[in-house]
Amino acid sequence: MAKITGVFSMRHFFVLSLALNVSFILRTMYEREQGLICFRSETQKGQITQRTRLYSSSSSSSSSAAATRTEAQDGVERVINLDQGDPTMYEQYWQHAGEQTTVVIRGWQHMSYFSDVSNICWFLEPELAKEIVRVHRVVGNAVTEGRHIIVGTGSSQLFLAALFALAPRDGPEPVSVVSQAPYYSSYPSMTDCLKSGLYKWAGAAQSYSKEGPYIELVTSPNNPDGNVRRSVVNKSEGTLVHDLAYYWPQYTPISSPADHELMLFTVSKSTGHAGMRIGWALVKDQEVAKRMIKFIELNTIGVSKDSQLRAAKVLQSVSDSSEHAGGWEGVESFFEFSYRVMAERWTLLREAVNSSGIFSLPEYPPAYCSFLNRVFEPQPAFAWLKCERDIHDCESFLRGHRILARGGKHFGVSPKYVRVSMLDRDNNFNLFVKRLCNIHL
Amino acid sequence: MAKITGVFSMRHFFVLSLALNVSFILRTMYEREQGLICFRSETQKGQITQRTRLYSSSSSSSSSAAATRTEAQDGVERVINLDQGDPTMYEQYWQHAGEQTTVVIRGWQHMSYFSDVSNICWFLEPELAKEIVRVHRVVGNAVTEGRHIIVGTGSSQLFLAALFALAPRDGPEPVSVVSQAPYYSSYPSMTDCLKSGLYKWAGAAQSYSKEGPYIELVTSPNNPDGNVRRSVVNKSEGTLVHDLAYYWPQYTPISSPADHELMLFTVSKSTGHAGMRIGWALVKDQEVAKRMIKFIELNTIGVSKDSQLRAAKVLQSVSDSSEHAGGWEGVESFFEFSYRVMAERWTLLREAVNSSGIFSLPEYPPAYCSFLNRVFEPQPAFAWLKCERDIHDCESFLRGHRILARGGKHFGVSPKYVRVSMLDRDNNFNLFVKRLCNIHL
Repeated sequence: MAKITGVFSMRHFFVLSLALNVSFILRTMYEREQGLICFRSETQKGQITQRTRLYSSSSSSSSSAAATRTEAQDGVERVINLDQGDPTMYEQYWQHAGEQTTVVIRGWQHMSYFSDVSNICWFLEPELAKEIVRVHRVVGNAVTEGRHIIVGTGSSQLFLAALFALAPRDGPEPVSVVSQAPYYSSYPSMTDCLKSGLYKWAGAAQSYSKEGPYIELVTSPNNPDGNVRRSVVNKSEGTLVHDLAYYWPQYTPISSPADHELMLFTVSKSTGHAGMRIGWALVKDQEVAKRMIKFIELNTIGVSKDSQLRAAKVLQSVSDSSEHAGGWEGVESFFEFSYRVMAERWTLLREAVNSSGIFSLPEYPPAYCSFLNRVFEPQPAFAWLKCERDIHDCESFLRGHRILARGGKHFGVSPKYVRVSMLDRDNNFNLFVKRLCNIHL
Repeated sequence: MAKITGVFSMRHFFVLSLALNVSFILRTMYEREQGLICFRSETQKGQITQRTRLYSSSSSSSSSAAATRTEAQDGVERVINLDQGDPTMYEQYWQHAGEQTTVVIRGWQHMSYFSDVSNICWFLEPELAKEIVRVHRVVGNAVTEGRHIIVGTGSSQLFLAALFALAPRDGPEPVSVVSQAPYYSSYPSMTDCLKSGLYKWAGAAQSYSKEGPYIELVTSPNNPDGNVRRSVVNKSEGTLVHDLAYYWPQYTPISSPADHELMLFTVSKSTGHAGMRIGWALVKDQEVAKRMIKFIELNTIGVSKDSQLRAAKVLQSVSDSSEHAGGWEGVESFFEFSYRVMAERWTLLREAVNSSGIFSLPEYPPAYCSFLNRVFEPQPAFAWLKCERDIHDCESFLRGHRILARGGKHFGVSPKYVRVSMLDRDNNFNLFVKRLCNIHL
C-alpha cells in the first residue's frame, strides 16, 4: 500500500474521483432515458425478494427456492406463463403461518359418502360450513343468514350446478346464458360443452335483447377486468348468478355484505388453495339449493372430504388472523399480507406500464373498505392489459416476448387486450415486470 | 347352603334337572321350527362382533362404537338403510392398519392447480399414478401398459367424461347409451341429466337394435346383480366403457388382467374410501384420453390434490400388504381381510335367505382367482335379492320391515328384485340378517 501511495499523488486520486463522478452522472442520465421507473422497480423488486426470503426462510420447498432466485439467474429466454390464474403467490404466507393449518387424516377417517345426513347438502362437512359462515362474518363480504351452503368441487362445478338448477324444466328451448363482456373466458365453453337442452350460451349481456327467461352471470369484481359489476340486462324473467370469487379485501374494497339470491365463492382465489378444488355457494331458495345438490350427486356423488377438512382449517386460520389486530400467534393477518403484496405488485406494474408507452391498464376509483378500514383502489387478481399504438393482437405480441397471457377474444372483446395473472410466485411476477420494461417498439 | 341342601333331597334335584332337560328339548324343537339357520347365524354373528371388537380396540371413533353395539341394544324398530353402497365395512381394517396410511398435509403444500405439466393429465399427482400402476400389477386385474391414466372426482365424473369423449362430434342426433339390464340405477339419470345433444340414454342393451354409433356400458362384476359381464350388442359402430369398480378379489375371482379400451376404477369400492371421491380411468386411445381430460377441466378444473395424495398412500398400503404373504407390519393383507368378511357375510345371508322361504339370491359359478390362488364363488358388494311367492314389490315389502333397499325398477327390471348393500358396518349388516330371519308371511 505504501508503494502505491508513493507512485500516485493526491492529485491523481482527485482526477480519478472526478472521472468516476462524471461516469456515474452519465450512467444516471442514460438510465433516465431508458426508463427510470423500471430502474426504480428493480429496487422495489429487491425488497419483495427480501420479503420472500424472510417468509420462506423456514422452508426448503422447491417453490420457495424458485421464488428466491434472482432474475439474472432466470435468464431472459424463459417463458413466463401468466395465462392461468394459478394463485401460487400465497404459498409464502402459508409457509410462514407454519403448522397451524396442517391437517392430519388417518386411514379410517371420512370413508363414508356422507358428511351430515341432517343437512340437505348431505356431503357438506359441518366444520367447513361453520368456517364459511365465520369467514364471511369476519370479512363482512356476504350475508350467510337464511342461506343454504352448498360445497362444490371448485366453484366451476357450482356454476354448472346453478345453470342446471335455474334452467326452466321442460322449456321449449334451452334458456339463454349471458354475461357482460369482457366475461370469464370459460363461461361459453363450460355452458356449451355438452350441448345441453336446458341452457345455451347467448353471448355478451350488454347486447342481449331476447324476451323470455334467461340466466345472467354477474362476476364482481370481474374476471378479467377487475371492475365491480351489476346485472345489465334487467328484464323481468331473468335469474342471476353472482360469481364473487374475487370479492375479498386483497383485491377490492369491501363495501357491504353481498346479499344476492345465489352467490359463488372459492378457496382458489380467497386463500390461494386452488389444488383443493373447494368452492361454495350461498343459496337463498331451497328448491334451487336442492337442485344444485342433485346436480353434484349426479356429477361426482359429493365433494372430497379431505379437501373440505383442509379448507375448513385454512379458513379458520384466515378468520383467526383477521380477528386479531396485528396478526395472530406471530403471523401477520392473512388479508393484510395479501393486500400488501397486491399493492406492491400493482405499483410495480403500473410504473412499468406507464414508462413503456406501449401498454395501458384500467383505472379504478378508490373506495372505502369496511374490513381493512381504509380507502384504496382495487388491485385485481388479473391485470387487464391493453396494447396501444398499432398492436392489434396483444396476446401474439407478448408471446413474441415469451410472455403467455390470454387474449381479449377469449373474453368476448378486442384482441388488443390480454389478461395477465397477478398471482404467480414472486420470481415470475418480477421477471414479467422486468421484461415489460425491456419491450420497445 | 347347608340349610338349602337340608330342605331339598337329591330326588328333588333330579326332578329339577329332568324338567330343565325337557325344557331345553322343547326350546330346541321350537327353534328348529322357527328357523334353526337363523339361530346358528346368531352364533356366527357373535363371532363377527368379536372380530369387530378386536379390530376396533385401538379406536374410540363413533363408527367403531356403533359397530360394537349389540343387536339387542339396537332394537327392532330402527330403520336399516342399505339403499346406498356406502362401504363403511372397511373402516375396521383401516383402524387396525393404524398410522401407516395417515396423511399429513401442510398449509402451503399442493396449492397450485397443476400436478404434473409434463403429463397430458396435468392434474394427476405422479404419486397416485405410480400406485395405480403398482396395485394393478400386484392384483393382476388390469393392464396398465400403453394406457393413459386419468384421475377423476370418483368414477362418476369419469363415466361422464367418457360419454363426452366417445360421443361423435356433430352427429345428426345424440348417440345412444345402453347397458344390459339390470344396469346401475344411476346410468340413466346421469346420462340424461342435462339433456345433452351429444348422448342419450337408450335403455337396456339386450333390446337395442338401432343402426349407427352407440356407447355400451359394461359393468363387470355387475352392479346390481354381481354377474361377470361382456358386451351384448355387438354391432360394428359401438364403443365400450368398462366399469370395473368391483373387479377386485374380495368380490370376484380375478381371472386375468382386464385389457379393454376404456376401463374405470374407484377407491370407493376397492379400498372403501368413498369420501375421497377418487376414481381413475385407464384409456388406450390418446385422443379419447385428451377429450376426457378436457371434460374434467371444464367440469371441475382438475381433481382434489389432497384426496389424490391420500388415495396414493392407501393404495400403497394395499399393495404392501398384498405383496407380503400373511400381511405386512403386523397387519393382515387387505384383500385377505375383505375377502373373509365378504365370505362370512354371504354365508350368513344365504343361510337366512334359504331358511326364510320368502327370498332367493342368484347362484354364481365358482372360479379360480389368480390373486388369492383359490377357487371361490363371487361374493358381490350388493345382494340381488328376489322376493318370491306373491310379493310383487320387494322394495315396499322390505320397507314395511324397516329395511331400505333399492327396487328392481331402478335397474330396469322387475320390482320383485331389490339391491341390498353388503358393505355396511357389522352392526347394520347383522341386524339386517336378523330381521330377515324374523320375516314371516
